[in-house]
Parts: sequence; structure tokens; C-alpha cells
Amino acid sequence: MDFIMDDETIDDLDLNGIKVIQKKDAFRFGVDAVLLANFARIPKGANVIDFCTGTGIVPFILAGKTNASYITGIEIQESMVEMAQRSIRYNKLETRIGFISGDLRDKELLKTLPKADVVTVNPPYKLKDSGIINLDDKNAIARHEICCTLEDVIIATVKVLKDNGRMYIVHRPERLADIFCTMRKHRMEPKVIKMVYPSIGKAPNIVLIEGQKYGGQFLKWETSLYVHDEDGSYSDEINKIYGRK
Amino acid sequence: MDFIMDDETIDDLDLNGIKVIQKKDAFRFGVDAVLLANFARIPKGANVIDFCTGTGIVPFILAGKTNASYITGIEIQESMVEMAQRSIRYNKLETRIGFISGDLRDKELLKTLPKADVVTVNPPYKLKDSGIINLDDKNAIARHEICCTLEDVIIATVKVLKDNGRMYIVHRPERLADIFCTMRKHRMEPKVIKMVYPSIGKAPNIVLIEGQKYGGQFLKWETSLYVHDEDGSYSDEINKIYGRK
Repeated sequence: MDFIMDDETIDDLDLNGIKVIQKKDAFRFGVDAVLLANFARIPKGANVIDFCTGTGIVPFILAGKTNASYITGIEIQESMVEMAQRSIRYNKLETRIGFISGDLRDKELLKTLPKADVVTVNPPYKLKDSGIINLDDKNAIARHEICCTLEDVIIATVKVLKDNGRMYIVHRPERLADIFCTMRKHRMEPKVIKMVYPSIGKAPNIVLIEGQKYGGQFLKWETSLYVHDEDGSYSDEINKIYGRK
Repeated sequence: MDFIMDDETIDDLDLNGIKVIQKKDAFRFGVDAVLLANFARIPKGANVIDFCTGTGIVPFILAGKTNASYITGIEIQESMVEMAQRSIRYNKLETRIGFISGDLRDKELLKTLPKADVVTVNPPYKLKDSGIINLDDKNAIARHEICCTLEDVIIATVKVLKDNGRMYIVHRPERLADIFCTMRKHRMEPKVIKMVYPSIGKAPNIVLIEGQKYGGQFLKWETSLYVHDEDGSYSDEINKIYGRK
């Protein structure tokens, strides 16, 4: 197999046969990215930008399940972008997905992008100073606000979105006040929220938010998602998202 | 019975025999106020202020179930305060509860109050312009931001609270971005949140929030409360709150 290296795996998304290459030992995509891609409403023909794209999981899911015209993934770690580009070639999705190695804080880079109808982002969740061991570690960069803060993400999103365009972000519930206040500060109005619980009786551990650039103030709450049923098995909603019977 | 008038009822809280007088046809206390009083953590000997107190339901529940030293209810509608004062006499709680008729926007009034350890508030939920028929209607004043906005409530709360004191507010989930952003604007940090659902599979319809004056940034999510079980009966948690077997 020419597409993958010894330290990588190639994983089936159960979605039109699309597969994504990942490192065996570095940050691998999780349920968060899958939920984000399923939460985002993508108009037909939309131009989409995915920040903090990592393996490219969100663009690949969107290519498989929506009529987005083109999806651009932006990722600061060059080695991840090189890997994601091999996933494009493997899936023959060159006409629908592109990856760019760059820093979302780079305003010159953002200016070169065509204006987006939709932005998706699965950013680092944790504050920079919360328990990092190695600043160069791929996992640390993906999980902690080392290379970009929540505010950097919102600023970049506002810059690349068309007026009234939508953003979709997945994050941790304990950051919700930060998220709402940072969004509002930059006129990215929170419009829809969906809480994700590991199971009934637990506190939520993932939050999905839709924002609208220059949107009016009204927040709609979707029904919550429970990942596991009370017997510990995956819930019907999760099985449906993962394309299982 | 000398305590109640023809257009009033006297309702048992199932809590140390405490009863509260209400109008038959005007704003009657609901599950929101009961959940708020049960959500608030009241240190022993605390001085508590309850804004938008209405019938006084929150002070009466707190007097019955906590070791608060004294609870002051503030209410703008004089007729409600007169009724709530009769509830005090009926329950012989003169040493633990007092009601004041006043406007929480009145800074001179707020200065006369002893500094509070805890503030509770069940404010009007709806924006002023959202479908009001009669501005003088008691229900309209309790439900719409006619006499005070969310920001008025937060400003008054910060004024009367001791540094690091806690506030407990019950509100509608669709206002959550407003709540968080207004709290932060006035350095009232959201610390704990609890979502309340009518039942599993529905969107949440009540939110309970603990804030701390000058508190550090970390938001803890409590397990959610479901009012009804799937068969339509009240959940165990609700029955426990209402003191039912």
C-alpha cells in the first residue's frame, strides 16, 4: 500500500467508502469531530472552511454526507496536512477537498481564502496552562490552546465567513461562558446549542454550537444526545450517526 | 380565617408545615421557584436576599429547609408584598423573613440592606416587547422585563452581595447567552449550571445557574433534572424536591 506509512492506519468512515489516514500513536479523531460534522447544516453548493482540521476527518465526513461544493481544511501542523493530503488522493476527492498548512492567526493567509458560507471547527479545548507536559507534542497542540486560543478561532471565523454565514463549533461544556462571551464580543451570535451526555444521569461532556455572523439574539436548544444507553451500549442516535444498523 | 381574602388560597409547601398565600387568578408560584430554592446552597447563618420575590415562595422554602439566619424578599408590586407579609404572620416566621416593597433599580434602597451572603432571584424571563397585552397586569410584570431587565437584576445583585458571595438564578435556556454575557460584564462569574428538562427526549426548558461575585473562571455542570419520567409521572428527583414519598 503506497498511501500509508508504518506508523499509520487507514480507517473506514462507513460513509460512501471514504477512508481517513491517521497516526497510530498521535491525536486520532474522536467522537467530537464526528458529532460536529453531523451537527453542521451545510447548504447545497456551500463553500466550507474547517479550522484545526487535523486528520481532515470533518472535511471527509462532509464530502461524504453533504452537497458542499468545496471544503478547505486548515491545520497548523505540516505533518498532519501531508497525511490528510494522502487521504484526499486515496479517496479521489481532489475536486471537493483541499488542505492548507497554515496558522489561523495569519491574516494574510485568511485573505487568500474565498469567503465561506460555513465554518466548522474542533479547536483545542484546554487552556494553555492546564497540565501540559511537552509543548511540541502533537496531542498537546490539538488539545491545549498553545497555537490558538478560542478567541483566535472566533476572530478567524468572522474574517473568512460571509455576512450571516454560520459557524459550527464543538467544545467542552465547562468553557460555555467563554464561548458565548467570546462569540458575542465578535458579533458571532449563538443560535443553536446541543448538549451531549455520556449517558442519562451524567453531566454533559460535549457541547455543539451553531453561530451566525451578525445574527439576531435567539438561542434554540436542540434535544440532547446521549452516547450510551443505560445498559452501556451505544444509543440508537449514535449508531445512526456512525452508520451502524 | 383572618389571613386570607376571598380571591386567595393558602397552599401547603409540605415543608415543616409552612404555607404560602397566593391569589387565585394572578401569578402563582411554579416549579421554577421551587427548583431555584432547592438549587441554592445556603451556608449556615447566611443573610439572604431574594429579588422578584412575588408570593415569597423562595424565602419560605429557604426558611423551612436551610439554616439561613434571615431572608429578605424584595418585590416591586405592593399588593404582593402585603400578601407575603400575611404569610409571614401565618407561619410565625417574623424573626427569619422580611419583605420590602421596592424597586431593585433603586440604589438608595439597596444601600439600606445589610450585605448578603447569597442572593436568589426568579426574574421575569421574557423581553419587554415579546407579546405583552397589558403592562399593568401582575402576570405581565412577573413574566416580562417591564420593571427590570436581566442586567438590572445582575447589577442589583452585585451591589448587595458580599465579595465572593453567591447568586442563584432560574431562567429560560434560550436566554443563556444573555445571562452569561451579562453576568461576566459585571464580574459575576457563572460557576455551576443545571439544566432542567420536561422529560428525556425534549429540549431543556429551565436553567439554574450559580454565580460568584469576582469568582474565577470555571463552570461546573451538574447532572440534569428530568421533571417527568417516560411514562408521564413525576420523576423521583421531583418527588423528593416536593417532599413526596
